[in-house]
Amino acid sequence: MTYTIPVELTSSPKPKPAHHNQAFGTVFTDHMFILDYDAEQGWHDPRIVPYQPIQLDPAAKVFHYGQTVFEGLKAYLTEDRRILMFRPNKNIERLNLSNRRLSIPDLDEELVLEALKQIVLVDRDWIPSEPGTSLYIRPFVIATEPVLGVAPSLQYKFMIILSVVGSYYAEGINPVGIYVEPKYVRAVVGGVGNAKTAGNYAAGLKAQDEATAKGYSQVLWLDGVHRKYIEEVGSMNVFFKLGDTVVTPALNGSILDGVTRSSVIQLLQHWGIPVEERAISIDEIIEAHRSGTLVEAFGTGTAAVISPIGSLEWQDEKLVIGQGVTGELSSRVYDAITGIQRGILEDPFGWVIELPLADAAKHS
Amino acid sequence: MTYTIPVELTSSPKPKPAHHNQAFGTVFTDHMFILDYDAEQGWHDPRIVPYQPIQLDPAAKVFHYGQTVFEGLKAYLTEDRRILMFRPNKNIERLNLSNRRLSIPDLDEELVLEALKQIVLVDRDWIPSEPGTSLYIRPFVIATEPVLGVAPSLQYKFMIILSVVGSYYAEGINPVGIYVEPKYVRAVVGGVGNAKTAGNYAAGLKAQDEATAKGYSQVLWLDGVHRKYIEEVGSMNVFFKLGDTVVTPALNGSILDGVTRSSVIQLLQHWGIPVEERAISIDEIIEAHRSGTLVEAFGTGTAAVISPIGSLEWQDEKLVIGQGVTGELSSRVYDAITGIQRGILEDPFGWVIELPLADAAKHS
Repeated sequence: MTYTIPVELTSSPKPKPAHHNQAFGTVFTDHMFILDYDAEQGWHDPRIVPYQPIQLDPAAKVFHYGQTVFEGLKAYLTEDRRILMFRPNKNIERLNLSNRRLSIPDLDEELVLEALKQIVLVDRDWIPSEPGTSLYIRPFVIATEPVLGVAPSLQYKFMIILSVVGSYYAEGINPVGIYVEPKYVRAVVGGVGNAKTAGNYAAGLKAQDEATAKGYSQVLWLDGVHRKYIEEVGSMNVFFKLGDTVVTPALNGSILDGVTRSSVIQLLQHWGIPVEERAISIDEIIEAHRSGTLVEAFGTGTAAVISPIGSLEWQDEKLVIGQGVTGELSSRVYDAITGIQRGILEDPFGWVIELPLADAAKHS
Repeated sequence: MTYTIPVELTSSPKPKPAHHNQAFGTVFTDHMFILDYDAEQGWHDPRIVPYQPIQLDPAAKVFHYGQTVFEGLKAYLTEDRRILMFRPNKNIERLNLSNRRLSIPDLDEELVLEALKQIVLVDRDWIPSEPGTSLYIRPFVIATEPVLGVAPSLQYKFMIILSVVGSYYAEGINPVGIYVEPKYVRAVVGGVGNAKTAGNYAAGLKAQDEATAKGYSQVLWLDGVHRKYIEEVGSMNVFFKLGDTVVTPALNGSILDGVTRSSVIQLLQHWGIPVEERAISIDEIIEAHRSGTLVEAFGTGTAAVISPIGSLEWQDEKLVIGQGVTGELSSRVYDAITGIQRGILEDPFGWVIELPLADAAKHS
């Protein structure tokens, strides 16, 4: 099935940034994709229009009851001017998993893929090409029905906006200090921690504020039941290299099934490095540090790809990991994934989709 | 300190509903209150304007990270045409507690009270007077900064909208069937369960859907750690009468500090009825049912005031409470609170605030 997505081009294109040192998610392109839902028509009226404010009734359910989900992925411009997207199908699949958890109607996955391709092609001149830069793609659904009853909305908007992002590591990859959070909990099994939904991020703001005030970059989240099993770091998944084995928390229901997480696991398996998805207690990590087997630790996520952890603070004890410098495995994984994403390295996994520039011609 | 809140009256007032059988939160009045925040000016520019859609950038943080809080309270028109508001200071106090948990800057509580009074006075002709009806007041804060970085917003809107609500019990108070939720969790200690924020409501939608499909009205939430202690019912607090004593879950951090909950406790104490705030396991309730000491159960919240529970379904066992009819205490509490709210009964607690109609004249 093919979809025709009408395009209304902007009559007043914005200037493109000359440099790429802007903060994450602050510079948006000229266009956006919109798809509407109501109970009678289902999802309907896909369209690409100039980037602009949206009008919502102040009673729209997203403002009151947080019925919303989102995704995040990236497009890249290769040196030979090809446009690549990294594993969009993983994001589209997760988008519908999140929708189901939040009682939002399923999206047509083929239409979403086509929308992702078309909006990126319409704004292809915004994709930066400098090393480390990319076009960040933010699909999201919001509940728009203006009704204050607590029940799933009967109206939604699915939108895609695009943001030019500079290099996360313009000054080189530097390991960060992490505060192991003893008080606040991000999510609990039975809740919405494995859905990519707004409430999980709102729930993390206060802990992040307090960690920042203490001089740490992020918090390490422990589980809400036992307060000892490691879940995520900030809004990233987390990996530890213990001796020759890499471990990461299993997807227990309160942890996000990260696309970068999944890619790192596949990559390690491909390299023949033992990798385990299982419960990991903070005590095990402390013990591994004491015995010298905690070799490396890093977070994984779409924005940073790999974020090496230089130290963990837990109960007034500071555990320095790998002398605080980026570990060999962290660098190897970062180089491999970003190399595949940018079309510099071979892609043995079929992760990368090339957008056919021919399809873009009809819109411009 | 007095606040001057500029009022722009609508030039096209909407027709007021002839009957009050509309669904909750579907009919809004002619005006709304807005207050803006930015990092430079703080909260500024309070104003009452015609009810209208708001324009937001699609990157506004509320859509992505759920940084939002809200409140709910009611105004009533007495038979002698006085306008009463029920315990607004409790809501305003909780609003700031929610703000702090969600890393939103504190609101000036005096300004919020003045805004509540003024917006209700501007739209006073919308307040219904039939028994059981009221004007529902929804103050809320949304994060509006158009930045996709996960961090507290530097821009917000605080708004108040008003909705005409019909009698919750137009057909009389009938006890409802409740499903004790075994799988999903609303909130956990360390999370945001005690803040009135969107994510808590989003997290409850799926369980409510499944309970509705099974023929139940609401779910009874158990705690996320032990999965045995009772927390809330739907989006209400919950009370049980065990023998001559009334028990309600203690405010442990994952339960909302409900204004109606607090009012019911004060009322019971005033009547000399023993009331305990403590941990209550579902096992204790089942045991009390078996031994015949579970006399009554009811939910409490602003919308319904009192919602009697006729039965609980737990692990394929159906516990019918009080032969499924509204209990004596439930009725007594309902009559007392609604009587005070509507100015029919004496208010020994100083709960009710009367809005001075003289202050309204200058705006109309």
